[in-house]
Amino acid sequence: MRTTVGIIGAGPAGLLLARLLHNAGIGSVVLESRDRAYVERRQRAGILEQGTVDVLRAAGAGARMDREGLPHEGIELRFDRRRHRVDFPALTAGRSVMVYAQTEVCKDLIALQTEQGGPLLFEAEALAVEDADGDRPRVRFRHEGREDVLECDYVAGCDGFWGVSRSAVPADRSQIFERTYPFGWLGVLADVPPSHDELVYARHERGFALLSMRSTSVSRLYLQVPDGTDAGDWRDEEIWAELERRFETADGWRLERGPITQKSVTPMRSFVHEPMRHGRLFLAGDAAHIVPPTGAKGLNLAVGDVVTLARALAHERRTGSADLLDAYSETCLRRVWQAERFSYDMTTLLHRHPDATPFEDRLQLARLARITTSRAAETDLAEAYTGFRLD
Amino acid sequence: MRTTVGIIGAGPAGLLLARLLHNAGIGSVVLESRDRAYVERRQRAGILEQGTVDVLRAAGAGARMDREGLPHEGIELRFDRRRHRVDFPALTAGRSVMVYAQTEVCKDLIALQTEQGGPLLFEAEALAVEDADGDRPRVRFRHEGREDVLECDYVAGCDGFWGVSRSAVPADRSQIFERTYPFGWLGVLADVPPSHDELVYARHERGFALLSMRSTSVSRLYLQVPDGTDAGDWRDEEIWAELERRFETADGWRLERGPITQKSVTPMRSFVHEPMRHGRLFLAGDAAHIVPPTGAKGLNLAVGDVVTLARALAHERRTGSADLLDAYSETCLRRVWQAERFSYDMTTLLHRHPDATPFEDRLQLARLARITTSRAAETDLAEAYTGFRLD
Repeated sequence: MRTTVGIIGAGPAGLLLARLLHNAGIGSVVLESRDRAYVERRQRAGILEQGTVDVLRAAGAGARMDREGLPHEGIELRFDRRRHRVDFPALTAGRSVMVYAQTEVCKDLIALQTEQGGPLLFEAEALAVEDADGDRPRVRFRHEGREDVLECDYVAGCDGFWGVSRSAVPADRSQIFERTYPFGWLGVLADVPPSHDELVYARHERGFALLSMRSTSVSRLYLQVPDGTDAGDWRDEEIWAELERRFETADGWRLERGPITQKSVTPMRSFVHEPMRHGRLFLAGDAAHIVPPTGAKGLNLAVGDVVTLARALAHERRTGSADLLDAYSETCLRRVWQAERFSYDMTTLLHRHPDATPFEDRLQLARLARITTSRAAETDLAEAYTGFRLD
Repeated sequence: MRTTVGIIGAGPAGLLLARLLHNAGIGSVVLESRDRAYVERRQRAGILEQGTVDVLRAAGAGARMDREGLPHEGIELRFDRRRHRVDFPALTAGRSVMVYAQTEVCKDLIALQTEQGGPLLFEAEALAVEDADGDRPRVRFRHEGREDVLECDYVAGCDGFWGVSRSAVPADRSQIFERTYPFGWLGVLADVPPSHDELVYARHERGFALLSMRSTSVSRLYLQVPDGTDAGDWRDEEIWAELERRFETADGWRLERGPITQKSVTPMRSFVHEPMRHGRLFLAGDAAHIVPPTGAKGLNLAVGDVVTLARALAHERRTGSADLLDAYSETCLRRVWQAERFSYDMTTLLHRHPDATPFEDRLQLARLARITTSRAAETDLAEAYTGFRLD
């Protein structure tokens, strides 16, 4: 098999890249190790930045998002039993976000790709990227029981944190930046209308809690839990009681309960691999970087990467110049590090660290007080939340 | 001896409080353990916030400051051999700071107090505050070889971190919030015009450096050094060479050398004692809280405390209501915790922590990049640097 751009992974990064390349007249083949049903079902992020929304629309993948997505113009910060709304458009000259699950974005992109794109192979497991720094990189993969080779001009490693792409960068050319956290998120899906029409980020002595939603009838709720927690250890009743405690306000706000249909624990990690390019291999999305979910940046970072990559490939095709491809890693990393910073700050702002000193507790409250009383500090948060410029 | 307000300590907090009370027609006695020459010589802070400048002027203590002080409308952040100026008036609707050494503020206030204020006793060492929560608190002190008692309506503990006042608050009523840092500042005074006309805060792989000044002919320079460093271990030549390395820029900026007239090491600490009031004893300045010097907040916090206290005492005198006195601790602590937060953030933004991971190094650079590219983030810094509202 032969193509211009071999794309490993059919998550949002790989699928959107295939779409952008198709629209630019550049051929690609997407290899995805899982089957289609799995990809269309896995629960991930749900907040699309303004820039991501714009990109999906421009790529022709925004129709259902615009029908079914929930535009959100703010979030609520909750602490000390008080509520503070951050008004995005007022602080950022009109920017906002869209609540639309990543799994729905993937469905839309898969439908488009199978109708009018290049090959998208499910159950095609990439085994290795070879000759990444030569003229003709190859992806060895296993599909329908046998091994095959995809010959490419370029390879896009969009196969997530656990994928094989990153390992094609020699260790002596790689630098890893990493931080782990001694807690994770117990997340539940519940068949109940969200108790608030915007996301609620709650800082509580017992730990962080987040109220989010998948639609007007499905709530997505999270509790900070110790690292290593088994979701099965939490009975539904306990989850609701704990959520009620952490979301409690002085003004009598109420959390509505409903049947929990799914529960799982997400670990938290900050991770960056530098550089994001090795020869003709380009890493994008979780293959190159991970953020803790508190800032809702993971999916949006992946979108930023593939927009940068598609633009660079189209530029090379049009002008013969590899300038933008050569700048890919540096261009992405500027944005990536801003998102890493913001995600780290949101995480430490709102979570209870098991070893936190009384000084650090007060510092957390002082930060929240600052955000809720200084327009500058609040704008800084709103700008970061609604998204960093794609360039 | 008997007075309305017994003030322990003739640092800027105690001296300014005495002045404000005098102007309000309230009597006071100031007890200072050191002699006058010592108080007028000790090197401390040198940056006055806009609010502090306004207070000193309004108190009639601003004449020499306005003649000799250096108004500063910005600072420079230096990192990655680049320079970025933070323009205070442009970001804060006209606010700025004044470079005028704390020791000069003290001289001015001492001169005023001896001319036209209540008693100011040097070499009068406070030994204990007694009956702080009774109607008639007393300060036991030693002066001219014998013990004496100052009977007061109120006691102001302005005797710094190592003073006796704080210990008059019973342990079961006290809460301590504290953070130490594994580094300090080696500070030098040098007889050479400052090499830059504004303060330069430099973040460098080898550690933080600060270029400051006492006047147009005297430079004040600092180097981050490991905790426990002895100033005597650094030869002048080594100090200049290290300063040159840390301040180096890509555009060929030059550091001028000159004779070093003083060198010392300042440890770094964050500390807050809550509450700041016990009965009729009110803690102000370093007696209640310490910040690392990076944000130039220590002196300004002390000024904020005594302005709040003088206002509350005048209110009580005028109306008979203790409302403002009762609110003193809470009112001050809101401002104190914002300064603690800012001082901690400026410290971690710019210093090299010996255990910093590569992730934390990158985070530091991302924070600096954010401040230098987002007007909101830069405004947040400029607002905090030029000062929090006194209320």
